[in-house]
Amino acid sequence: MPLLIRSSYVSKFHTTNSKPSSFSDQIPSKSPFFSSFNHNPLTNLVYKRNPKMQSLSFPSPTTVKSSLIDPDGGELVELIVPESEIELKKKEAESMPRVRLTKIDLEWVHVISEGWASPLKGFMREDEYLQTLHFNSLRLKDGTLVNMSLPIVLAIDDKTKEHIGVSKNVALATPQGHIIGSLRSVEIYKHNKEERIARTWGTTSPGLPYVEEHIAPAGNWLIGGDLEVFQGIKYNDGLDHYRLSPKQLRKEFDNRKADAVFAFQLRNPVHNGHALLMNDTRKRLLEMGYKNPVLLLHPLGGFTKADDVPLDVRMEQHSKVLEDGVLDPETTIVSIFPSPMHYAGPTEVQWHAKARINAGANFYIVGRDPAGMGHPTEKRDLYDPDHGKKVLSMAPGLEKLNILPFRVAAYDTVEKQMAFFDPTRAKEFLFISGTKMRTYARTGESPPDGFMCPSGWNVLVKYYESLQESDESSKQQAVVSA
Amino acid sequence: MPLLIRSSYVSKFHTTNSKPSSFSDQIPSKSPFFSSFNHNPLTNLVYKRNPKMQSLSFPSPTTVKSSLIDPDGGELVELIVPESEIELKKKEAESMPRVRLTKIDLEWVHVISEGWASPLKGFMREDEYLQTLHFNSLRLKDGTLVNMSLPIVLAIDDKTKEHIGVSKNVALATPQGHIIGSLRSVEIYKHNKEERIARTWGTTSPGLPYVEEHIAPAGNWLIGGDLEVFQGIKYNDGLDHYRLSPKQLRKEFDNRKADAVFAFQLRNPVHNGHALLMNDTRKRLLEMGYKNPVLLLHPLGGFTKADDVPLDVRMEQHSKVLEDGVLDPETTIVSIFPSPMHYAGPTEVQWHAKARINAGANFYIVGRDPAGMGHPTEKRDLYDPDHGKKVLSMAPGLEKLNILPFRVAAYDTVEKQMAFFDPTRAKEFLFISGTKMRTYARTGESPPDGFMCPSGWNVLVKYYESLQESDESSKQQAVVSA
Repeated sequence: MPLLIRSSYVSKFHTTNSKPSSFSDQIPSKSPFFSSFNHNPLTNLVYKRNPKMQSLSFPSPTTVKSSLIDPDGGELVELIVPESEIELKKKEAESMPRVRLTKIDLEWVHVISEGWASPLKGFMREDEYLQTLHFNSLRLKDGTLVNMSLPIVLAIDDKTKEHIGVSKNVALATPQGHIIGSLRSVEIYKHNKEERIARTWGTTSPGLPYVEEHIAPAGNWLIGGDLEVFQGIKYNDGLDHYRLSPKQLRKEFDNRKADAVFAFQLRNPVHNGHALLMNDTRKRLLEMGYKNPVLLLHPLGGFTKADDVPLDVRMEQHSKVLEDGVLDPETTIVSIFPSPMHYAGPTEVQWHAKARINAGANFYIVGRDPAGMGHPTEKRDLYDPDHGKKVLSMAPGLEKLNILPFRVAAYDTVEKQMAFFDPTRAKEFLFISGTKMRTYARTGESPPDGFMCPSGWNVLVKYYESLQESDESSKQQAVVSA
Repeated sequence: MPLLIRSSYVSKFHTTNSKPSSFSDQIPSKSPFFSSFNHNPLTNLVYKRNPKMQSLSFPSPTTVKSSLIDPDGGELVELIVPESEIELKKKEAESMPRVRLTKIDLEWVHVISEGWASPLKGFMREDEYLQTLHFNSLRLKDGTLVNMSLPIVLAIDDKTKEHIGVSKNVALATPQGHIIGSLRSVEIYKHNKEERIARTWGTTSPGLPYVEEHIAPAGNWLIGGDLEVFQGIKYNDGLDHYRLSPKQLRKEFDNRKADAVFAFQLRNPVHNGHALLMNDTRKRLLEMGYKNPVLLLHPLGGFTKADDVPLDVRMEQHSKVLEDGVLDPETTIVSIFPSPMHYAGPTEVQWHAKARINAGANFYIVGRDPAGMGHPTEKRDLYDPDHGKKVLSMAPGLEKLNILPFRVAAYDTVEKQMAFFDPTRAKEFLFISGTKMRTYARTGESPPDGFMCPSGWNVLVKYYESLQESDESSKQQAVVSA
């Protein structure tokens, strides 16, 4: 089963001449209130070097905990009905009022059912929704907080609400009408879209991709409840083998005897600047005394905006990067994170980090402007590029995660490679944004040498060529039909 | 010194026939995550009946703690320069770059300098600002959270920023140019107004009073730092004697041997529905075993929107309500809360509650739609009327405060008095909103008997008459000058 890219390619570490960077040099701590508890991994060494780590006993196949970090709430949530009960549950669901899911709703069902959002056990009820919007966290019964920054909610319209009436449970159906599970002990409450959008994105500007795709067309009610699905969500797109659940990932980290797991979230092709961050992290973790740090290269697989590179192309690109040895296949796990993308910057990066705790990662890399994008109507970044890592480092419920804020990497035109930006010789650096990278690939222009491994770049060029071809062919069709 | 309304009027309790209400009957707790820790005062009885309370030793004049509840951060912040250093500090400030404050900025200086925002020691630096916007709380160095839901920030424009340059300290000047203090170890950062507004109000709709008055005209930078003021802020409006600091209030609670202090925030005249809530609270606290619960009737004294009743009129109305014995002068302290009003609903009600902790209140009454208003451009409430008390009951950092959510009071047309709304005979109740009340007073129409004590009502009628007179006289002047 080709679950993981764990090839026998010779490991060729990508080395750099960059000066050593400090994990925490991005977060000044002037404020008397700002505690530096969770951005300097050195402060956690005592815990990390816990004697338990020296005598790792390998878990049985049913264990869902890796020993590195507990899931939020202490237990990984899994909401897939046991084999023996499926027929009964399906029969029950047949008699319930039905809620038709959109493609993005289904991605959230996937996310919730596998426990990425632990301890959340279903779509949010109003108490959870309000805590998320106002506090970016949920309070557990014992008084502790877990992080929860994005509303994970299911919208229904007036007609569906009326149809549900006073029913306590509803069946969930795919866009094609196939029942895949149920939501129990439901609570229906108002979907104030304006407030949700303003508090999640910090703007109500038109042109936010997730809003236009998913919120604007949605109904004026939200329905929360306890989720059950009959089986794990599959996409049958040839990439399901990459979609490891938190449980599977934790098992894999234990199998690999990882003593640290560092996660890298991305929705773009991997260039050598990204690789620099990841390889530098590994180097530093080794220097700190870890024997076997494992990288979770974790591209986001749900909804992305139209001009992002599609998932299948990115996955092909990522495998070239590993084939080329830019990243070490022996110490890297590539897997797909099933969440849709909000492009909500500092609010969303918390979700990205929190979900990786549940998958067993105890280190999280964060760079410039995570989950950001350009302002939809103004000529500026939507978010201050430094706010993501600042907010992440201060976020309630993420204290147990080691946040690794990094200086920005850029193309060093002297050394002809990606390197950490050195402000003392700013003019020698070239910033290549995702947009610029896509423009290079689209126009067939080559990026500077050393920006990306050639085989990976080739994947992008081919993708954009195919886009142009289909563009031209559809233009020709338009001419014919006109 | 007429500091307090503590008259010798005969106490005439306003009695009601309303059925007993539960403090917590407004907050359903269906969610597995929602802990009911901080909305049921009964759970805190053990602490409240602490033996210490039986042997209250009265504090010396310099003590700033009442024994009922600790200020946030453990110590009440006071930023007024000691007498002996004033001359030196004034001299220093003369040589610093100057920041000219608006009227509302000055209200915030008042708020911060007296410790209402403890443990905040000045206008927010960026770390505090970001935590406020995203988490409605600040993390202290020991890892605990205090509530902080409104950005308490000082905006400056490009020219002032340039003028400040690399100076570490700035002088603060009144709108008239009089230097009143300084801000030290300053940090200047971007003022993204759109994001601030969206995250604070949950809308970016035009027409938000605080935004139009204070944010829209403000500069594009925020300046944070440690505040020092040369003396307590005074307004010389004949109401300064009502402006007790948290320190003074705590002292007064101890002087009165209060064993519980329940705060009532308001920005409207007190009608008998309000009085019902307050008197019912007292009754219940007595039933719970408290011997001497004291009410802090705490009208907001800073910026309010144009159609709200002005502070001086409200203070006169409040004193009539006490003269009439609708509230008991013996167990009531009337004082002015110096904060400006945001009309930011669930976000702002947290600030209102948090500030009262610092003033020594350990119970906080919350009703329908606290700090809310109509949506500025749509025909609906800006906030769900139930969200305020829900959010308040779940807010991080308010765990030590007993939140008292109340059912809405309305005019019972059968009993001819204000009473708790009884949904089983909904048709017999009349809802009189603040807007409706103002309309009655403006048009000279009498509200139903029992809505407000006649002498208090008379204050309002006179105010609106004077408004009409000045309207007519300005119309006549316009005719003359035309």
